[in-house]
Amino acid sequence: MKKLRIIKIGGHIIDDKNRLLAFLKKFQKLEGPKILVHGGGGSATALAETLGVKQTMIEGRRITDSKTLEIAVMVYAGLINKTIIAQLQMLNCNAIGLTGADANLIKSKKRDNTLIDYGFVGDILSDGVNVPVIVELLEKNTIPVLSPITHDGEGNLLNTNADTLASKMAVAMAKHYSVTLTYCFEKKGVLRETNKEASYLHEITMANYIQLKNQHIISDGMIPKLDNAFDALANGVSSIEIGQAENLNPNSNLAFIGTTLKL
Amino acid sequence: MKKLRIIKIGGHIIDDKNRLLAFLKKFQKLEGPKILVHGGGGSATALAETLGVKQTMIEGRRITDSKTLEIAVMVYAGLINKTIIAQLQMLNCNAIGLTGADANLIKSKKRDNTLIDYGFVGDILSDGVNVPVIVELLEKNTIPVLSPITHDGEGNLLNTNADTLASKMAVAMAKHYSVTLTYCFEKKGVLRETNKEASYLHEITMANYIQLKNQHIISDGMIPKLDNAFDALANGVSSIEIGQAENLNPNSNLAFIGTTLKL
Repeated sequence: MKKLRIIKIGGHIIDDKNRLLAFLKKFQKLEGPKILVHGGGGSATALAETLGVKQTMIEGRRITDSKTLEIAVMVYAGLINKTIIAQLQMLNCNAIGLTGADANLIKSKKRDNTLIDYGFVGDILSDGVNVPVIVELLEKNTIPVLSPITHDGEGNLLNTNADTLASKMAVAMAKHYSVTLTYCFEKKGVLRETNKEASYLHEITMANYIQLKNQHIISDGMIPKLDNAFDALANGVSSIEIGQAENLNPNSNLAFIGTTLKL
Repeated sequence: MKKLRIIKIGGHIIDDKNRLLAFLKKFQKLEGPKILVHGGGGSATALAETLGVKQTMIEGRRITDSKTLEIAVMVYAGLINKTIIAQLQMLNCNAIGLTGADANLIKSKKRDNTLIDYGFVGDILSDGVNVPVIVELLEKNTIPVLSPITHDGEGNLLNTNADTLASKMAVAMAKHYSVTLTYCFEKKGVLRETNKEASYLHEITMANYIQLKNQHIISDGMIPKLDNAFDALANGVSSIEIGQAENLNPNSNLAFIGTTLKL
């Protein structure tokens, strides 16, 4: 099976021009087929503040009212996505920036509002990823750069968690490729001791994870990220790594500096 | 030669949800290969105002400083483009929203600043349109929807006039297709008498145009639009129409209600 790398980058790196460019240079050098998934960063929150659009967070998730959705589409699908594309083109990486609506790439469903009304938040359908279109792009050496905006097929754009989008994309592509999914974030990996970078785990198994969760060593924001990741691993993704963008490997034969997940 | 239709829509229709949807339904019904090019609309100006970014216009052209460019990218490539894509997908039209940076589709050069510094404004290079990528999309029945943002290949996004983008695209595609370019705007066509819709010209030749310009019957905003259009006509585009989105023909055999340009 051909190899495919899916890299997800988050907020902090997007907000820092120099770090973003340094990362994109590393991404450009990755051998073989690859996909970039990016999150939001601080610019959406900053724009919402300037525009006086109040942001409500419930359990770490942003409530997406119609104004917040507009801001997300402008910042994620517009500014961030196209800034990345222009820079990758400069680096001779033939990138194409897409949302889930473009070419009907990723279909989602507005989250059911039983307890909390999350607003215009989309959960990707189980058969929601349009795999043939992605395969075609990759085979022509066109690099998809995906922003976390999806659509419901009924004319509505929806805001989708970028970690989840990366994991669903990885699972869908796992039928055609041996997929390595790399989550880039601020820490060196999953830490054993809060704020101690040196304490990062080189490897974590599903059994470890449950244990560490019970011991409250892993908590907060890491839990949805790892839930997503283990879910992808259980569903055919070959390898999952969590670490710093700075430590991205140019080829998959080198040992990863960060945390590698095992079933 | 295969037929291709390129439709350009401007501001007023984009700002009106119902008119936009009615137009997209007409666009969806157009037979054969087609491309949609959209302009900005009032939302960019409105957003700039809310954000306190002062807009400077010189000779009807917006000066694009770096903040204004960010707003243009957010609104054109983000909000407007993706709203159109989601609606076309709902109408079973497999649209893909692109800027000139995506897949290196349209390369431009920052305008030389001899007399006026237009800022981040891009003039499309003579060989700037990536024709093979567009042909490939059209042959797979994927409909390109282009926002007026281009790139210089050096990492910079640039703001490009949407009328010009549509005309340059039409000229570039004219080597492969018999192209009909339709400019949709607010009036029924090119008017003989200001504000008298009934006075629209059914046909206008290059000679007529020069005459009408000299008589100041055609002036202001119509001049760059018609200059663009006649330029395209002189460079291989088969047919150019100017009229209302509401009068868009479902097939090219019907007489166009509006102004048709002739050499």
